Amino acid sequence: MTASPAPRRFDVIAIGNAIVDIMAPATDDQVAALGLAKGGMTLVDSDRAATLYDAMGPAREISGGSAANTLAGLAALGADCAFIGQVADDQFGRVFAHDIRAGQIAFDTAARAGQPQTAQCLIFVTPDGQRTMNTFLGASQFLPAAALDETMIAASRVLYLEGYLWDPEEPRAAMRKAIAAARAAGTQVAFTLSDAFVISRHGDDFRALIANGEIDILFANEHELAALTGEDDFHTGMAKICAQVPTVVVTRGSEGAHARRDGADAHVPAEPIKRVVDTTGAGDLFAAGFLYGHVRGLALEECLRLGAVCAAEVISHYGARPEADLKALTGIA
Amino acid sequence: MTASPAPRRFDVIAIGNAIVDIMAPATDDQVAALGLAKGGMTLVDSDRAATLYDAMGPAREISGGSAANTLAGLAALGADCAFIGQVADDQFGRVFAHDIRAGQIAFDTAARAGQPQTAQCLIFVTPDGQRTMNTFLGASQFLPAAALDETMIAASRVLYLEGYLWDPEEPRAAMRKAIAAARAAGTQVAFTLSDAFVISRHGDDFRALIANGEIDILFANEHELAALTGEDDFHTGMAKICAQVPTVVVTRGSEGAHARRDGADAHVPAEPIKRVVDTTGAGDLFAAGFLYGHVRGLALEECLRLGAVCAAEVISHYGARPEADLKALTGIA
Repeated sequence: MTASPAPRRFDVIAIGNAIVDIMAPATDDQVAALGLAKGGMTLVDSDRAATLYDAMGPAREISGGSAANTLAGLAALGADCAFIGQVADDQFGRVFAHDIRAGQIAFDTAARAGQPQTAQCLIFVTPDGQRTMNTFLGASQFLPAAALDETMIAASRVLYLEGYLWDPEEPRAAMRKAIAAARAAGTQVAFTLSDAFVISRHGDDFRALIANGEIDILFANEHELAALTGEDDFHTGMAKICAQVPTVVVTRGSEGAHARRDGADAHVPAEPIKRVVDTTGAGDLFAAGFLYGHVRGLALEECLRLGAVCAAEVISHYGARPEADLKALTGIA
Repeated sequence: MTASPAPRRFDVIAIGNAIVDIMAPATDDQVAALGLAKGGMTLVDSDRAATLYDAMGPAREISGGSAANTLAGLAALGADCAFIGQVADDQFGRVFAHDIRAGQIAFDTAARAGQPQTAQCLIFVTPDGQRTMNTFLGASQFLPAAALDETMIAASRVLYLEGYLWDPEEPRAAMRKAIAAARAAGTQVAFTLSDAFVISRHGDDFRALIANGEIDILFANEHELAALTGEDDFHTGMAKICAQVPTVVVTRGSEGAHARRDGADAHVPAEPIKRVVDTTGAGDLFAAGFLYGHVRGLALEECLRLGAVCAAEVISHYGARPEADLKALTGIA
């Protein structure tokens, strides 16, 4: 007779960039004149960041970071969450740490002294609501493997990782270590592909992780799915990846989202939205809603519905963190 | 025969606190439990600021400062503006400087090295849209008189001063010097009383300035008017102050606003608003609209109407800086 396993302390623990978003409205002409890849995420150095900031209109600062945004949504829905990510010991670092802790998310990664600064993402939001992101990774790229708390990973149902953080070397090593810790502990590994350009840089790594069966839950949009699988046809790409990953969730913008889990399929249409104000965080909050349903053992259709409602909320206002009461909005209250 | 005077380079030059607002929704219970004076502005030290920040929900950061907000509105309407205020050499200082310059406002005050940090205002916004402000003045209180550029003051039609900045000694001395420079140059002096508690601390100074004829334009709300004049009856207080100040503008919340200029009276009802989201900056933006009309030589009723439209815009969203196109909204485009 064996003892029953201890209950998991966290529903989801995530490793991600610890970023403060600096957001301003912009025209399509301005985005073009600055040579920005509209709709994408581009890594920038501090000089380029300074140039872009000088060109930006009056802005506002709101905590961001893809996985951190997802946790903010999960916590707002009532999930127990923890975050691992590297801020600097500066004002933006204190802003990030405040906002994530104020969202009832455990966050214990010690701030890093000295330069570089806390990561910043300069986001130009065009009148169509599309966001064009320019990320200065700063301190975020120095997340050391030593910052991982493997007992916390083992105490979580799901380890959630963002593809964006695969670029810098130290966090990549930390994430590989985290995956190993999760697999050893029976913690599910969820991964979001983040951006098609990230896949162009690291697709081989991602495909190897998937082929080795190290990913339990994969989040992507249709462009990332195509970049990962090399298949332009959505259904062909979906079939290819679903042969290797137990749970696959793919968003298709206004066409809604598809998921396959353990051989079963589901689809949800996009939520009707009065006005798309700012798409920043749409995918992050979709993942939040889906994961909430997943860790609560809800039906696949319901997981997708929760994702769609959370995504719709976040694109109805500036900023990638939820503002409305997500429990009430989703009807799970 | 004398040479005609040189055209004024700036419509309005302002001296004010250089503040970044840290804003979060709060319940009335939370505001009460923290011992905050709902609707008011309280000066806090760094320890109290840290305690309040810890108690605050996930926040967003938006540049603020009363006079700076007024300039942001004026510049958005098309006025030429300059700002004088003290930031520290830190991230919030760079945020403030960026936002004001990105609004096409001249700002040349050098950042101050070392501690304290750039001023921060912790703002709890209750469901009724009311804002409760807790200001850590930080670097702002060390604005030196040497930061004044008297030639810029002389090159402006109006010098605009905020009562909030009367608390710390150095900026108070700077503002007295600025008033003298303005009077010598024929620049009109506009003053906003800011807050009834500021008047309880400095009412004697303000009354002396007014009695000495040093104020050409006075902005107040009805509570500040009562605190300044000692008259509970609005019309009695108005008559008292109008005997000493050529232009007086008093806002009365949902009852609209009154003005008297050179013996003529005008009144404007409050603009209809779908939903009051956050009243932060309402008075600042009213002053912006009024001053725009004033420096353009518009009729008193039109000055008030511009004020009401600008105030209505800023309370329809979070943050004390305008987001909509004020030229289009006011119809002056």
